[in-house]
Amino acid sequence: METYTDIPEELKLAVLERIKPTESEKERLLSVQEELTSQVKAATEKLYIQDVLVKIVGSAARGTWLSGTHDIDIFISFPEETPRKELESLGMAIAREVAKHAEHAEDRHAEHPYLNITYKGFDVDLVPCFRVASASRIKSAVDRTPFHNDFVKPRITGHEADVLLLKQFMRGGGVYGSELKTQGFSGYLTELLIIHYGSFEKTVRAACSWKPGEKIDIMHHAEIEHGESLVMVDPTDPKRNVAAALSLDKFCMFIDHCREFLKSPELSFFFPAPLLPLEGSEILERLESRKSTQLAIVFKTPDVVEDVLYPQLYKMEQAAAALLKEYDFTVIKTGVWSGKPETAVLLELISGTLPNVKKHIGPPVWVKVHAEKFKEKYQGADGVFGGYIENGKYVFEILRKYPTAKGLLEERLMSCSLGKQVHQSVNEGFEIIEDAGICRVKDQDFRVFLRGWM
Amino acid sequence: METYTDIPEELKLAVLERIKPTESEKERLLSVQEELTSQVKAATEKLYIQDVLVKIVGSAARGTWLSGTHDIDIFISFPEETPRKELESLGMAIAREVAKHAEHAEDRHAEHPYLNITYKGFDVDLVPCFRVASASRIKSAVDRTPFHNDFVKPRITGHEADVLLLKQFMRGGGVYGSELKTQGFSGYLTELLIIHYGSFEKTVRAACSWKPGEKIDIMHHAEIEHGESLVMVDPTDPKRNVAAALSLDKFCMFIDHCREFLKSPELSFFFPAPLLPLEGSEILERLESRKSTQLAIVFKTPDVVEDVLYPQLYKMEQAAAALLKEYDFTVIKTGVWSGKPETAVLLELISGTLPNVKKHIGPPVWVKVHAEKFKEKYQGADGVFGGYIENGKYVFEILRKYPTAKGLLEERLMSCSLGKQVHQSVNEGFEIIEDAGICRVKDQDFRVFLRGWM
Repeated sequence: METYTDIPEELKLAVLERIKPTESEKERLLSVQEELTSQVKAATEKLYIQDVLVKIVGSAARGTWLSGTHDIDIFISFPEETPRKELESLGMAIAREVAKHAEHAEDRHAEHPYLNITYKGFDVDLVPCFRVASASRIKSAVDRTPFHNDFVKPRITGHEADVLLLKQFMRGGGVYGSELKTQGFSGYLTELLIIHYGSFEKTVRAACSWKPGEKIDIMHHAEIEHGESLVMVDPTDPKRNVAAALSLDKFCMFIDHCREFLKSPELSFFFPAPLLPLEGSEILERLESRKSTQLAIVFKTPDVVEDVLYPQLYKMEQAAAALLKEYDFTVIKTGVWSGKPETAVLLELISGTLPNVKKHIGPPVWVKVHAEKFKEKYQGADGVFGGYIENGKYVFEILRKYPTAKGLLEERLMSCSLGKQVHQSVNEGFEIIEDAGICRVKDQDFRVFLRGWM
Repeated sequence: METYTDIPEELKLAVLERIKPTESEKERLLSVQEELTSQVKAATEKLYIQDVLVKIVGSAARGTWLSGTHDIDIFISFPEETPRKELESLGMAIAREVAKHAEHAEDRHAEHPYLNITYKGFDVDLVPCFRVASASRIKSAVDRTPFHNDFVKPRITGHEADVLLLKQFMRGGGVYGSELKTQGFSGYLTELLIIHYGSFEKTVRAACSWKPGEKIDIMHHAEIEHGESLVMVDPTDPKRNVAAALSLDKFCMFIDHCREFLKSPELSFFFPAPLLPLEGSEILERLESRKSTQLAIVFKTPDVVEDVLYPQLYKMEQAAAALLKEYDFTVIKTGVWSGKPETAVLLELISGTLPNVKKHIGPPVWVKVHAEKFKEKYQGADGVFGGYIENGKYVFEILRKYPTAKGLLEERLMSCSLGKQVHQSVNEGFEIIEDAGICRVKDQDFRVFLRGWM
């Protein structure tokens, strides 16, 4: 039996008071949604485009949006048989027509193009899509969204507050958001968890005992096996895992967050105290106290969306750590921070320097041809300190090529496999800063990141 | 086909000129042997001891001793049925009688007691033993020796020069001597190699292609399997491996010595130039050039014979390295030097210091009970820098208990499993000297050792 405390009603109410949209917020959202719907319809008429339907989807449509967020997703759907080219050109033509009334508009691109506009302070996506018969017949990933809306909307009614609590709770734990930067829980996944478990509290209690491979299949229709930590079979598509983007660590951080919360349910799990930026003097104190080596690879942030940028940064983080390990440095941990105009990949090492001498172990003496070749190469060669036999193998003490991590990164970072835009930016120039040198970066958000880092 | 050069006859002659006993040396040895034999006989008569035989064994008896060595082994054999106590008391009584004519005498102890005397400049062992019917029926390890003598003597006649060459060649390669300090080739093993292969040259050529598990069974009578690098089945005992004391590294060093010698046969393989002691300034230069950390554990040399001392020193070398590794230090190599009055165990490390922060990885978050216990222990505890989740596991950054290798050894060396006499001596006091501190030890033999070490 669990010995967790109950979640006090007052606590939930206190949270909801801060995150539940007010009546005036709701009215304003509704009226903006109506305006935009009319404008899309007017545009189709003006452009003589037939058979187009407009649908408001997402949390705004389902009443599960958090107060203060201003996102509206408008899907402009075309008949299934519409050629892709035509859907793209006509869809964007309609969107551009609507954008004439907007404060700002920007072309974006997922599987096919869509338009992001700012309209009366709202962040609006105008997304052309195919109107297919079922989610398993989609022609593009976005075609799925209207089905999600149809599934969730009738089932979530009456549980909107639970969704809001869970979303805010996940935010507080740093695990909300399925974008590639966060690799956490999506809004749709959160809603499905509430539909499955029945309430915020039940979800949190259940998650305490989750294990990797945890599977939820609301419609009992799963068709394939998935390898991810959490498998939430999409109720609208038996082949899809809604939680595919959730990383193992975010999965575990959520479990941890749930357990800690149930031990002492407090407001801070929803609204953690913001971290203060680390002062220069605090950085120096912490360096002195840890006595490890801190390295940061600093370069100009590439001008791409986060979903393109972060996978490349994570790849670079891994590649830099692998390079350091290959040359005998011991990496304690790695991290990524990105701001404007700079990005930093951080590496903490046991030490940034290694001795000049490196123990190079060769083949066993009795593997004659290889052993003799090895010995011939190193015996008496330049930069060889000496040689001996250990455990039956030739060992030579040779001069280490890269005795400092900084020198290694400066010389070899560009030979690592890096993503396209990061490669371009790093190629234009980068800097390796070390220990106290890190104080050079004054960005306050970076300094907040540092407080969590060291 | 091998492409090695022939060994020039002149080279062999030049070596033999330096190692073959002269006629006058031989005469002197013979006359001393005869004197000692008569004295043993006289002693048995004086003490009214019946049925005792005297036998000269070892290389002196077989004409395979190197010029300049002065060892004589005299075995005083008693009937097989003699009680052990009686053999010991009567045998030692005879030996003590002989010792009255000696310059010096010293009780020694192997499986049973024997007497070591200095007689006219010769180092003589007077060893009581049982006269058993065959080597497989021996009652004590020394009883075997007369059988070795009987086997080797008739077969080695005419090949004495080959034995001398091989022994000196092994000396030059640092692999001669089966005592526990060296773990190399014994004199008897050397003789058997010559008997088996036929000559010095053939032995050296064969050894170039040896592999661990190489087996030689002259009498084709092996009765059990052996796991050692070289298996030389004792011609006088089908169960015994004559090469059991040979270490893998000395086996490999011999292979290497043979290969290099055949590439360019030179006198230096028999008589390497002696290493000069390293000057203090050279030590400092080499430290600066290697930039690793050198540690030496220095303590008073225990007053025991080398066959007792060295196994304990090797054990300590392993134990100290294991202790350092357990606490995250990276050991490059270890070594042992022992002189009078001091002994030093040397350890070369990547670095003698580690950061204060230590990454302590706990159980996976989903292994609930263990994970929660782990987190409870470290969360917010004293000396904990912070915690996070990595690869699904709790990780805490904790304060390292031993950030310096010196401090670790000073505090924990005594808790290592050490041999009896070494433990006693270390317990009375030891010192950890580091890097330039090593210059403190002025012993010239230590400084010679250092030249090979760094």
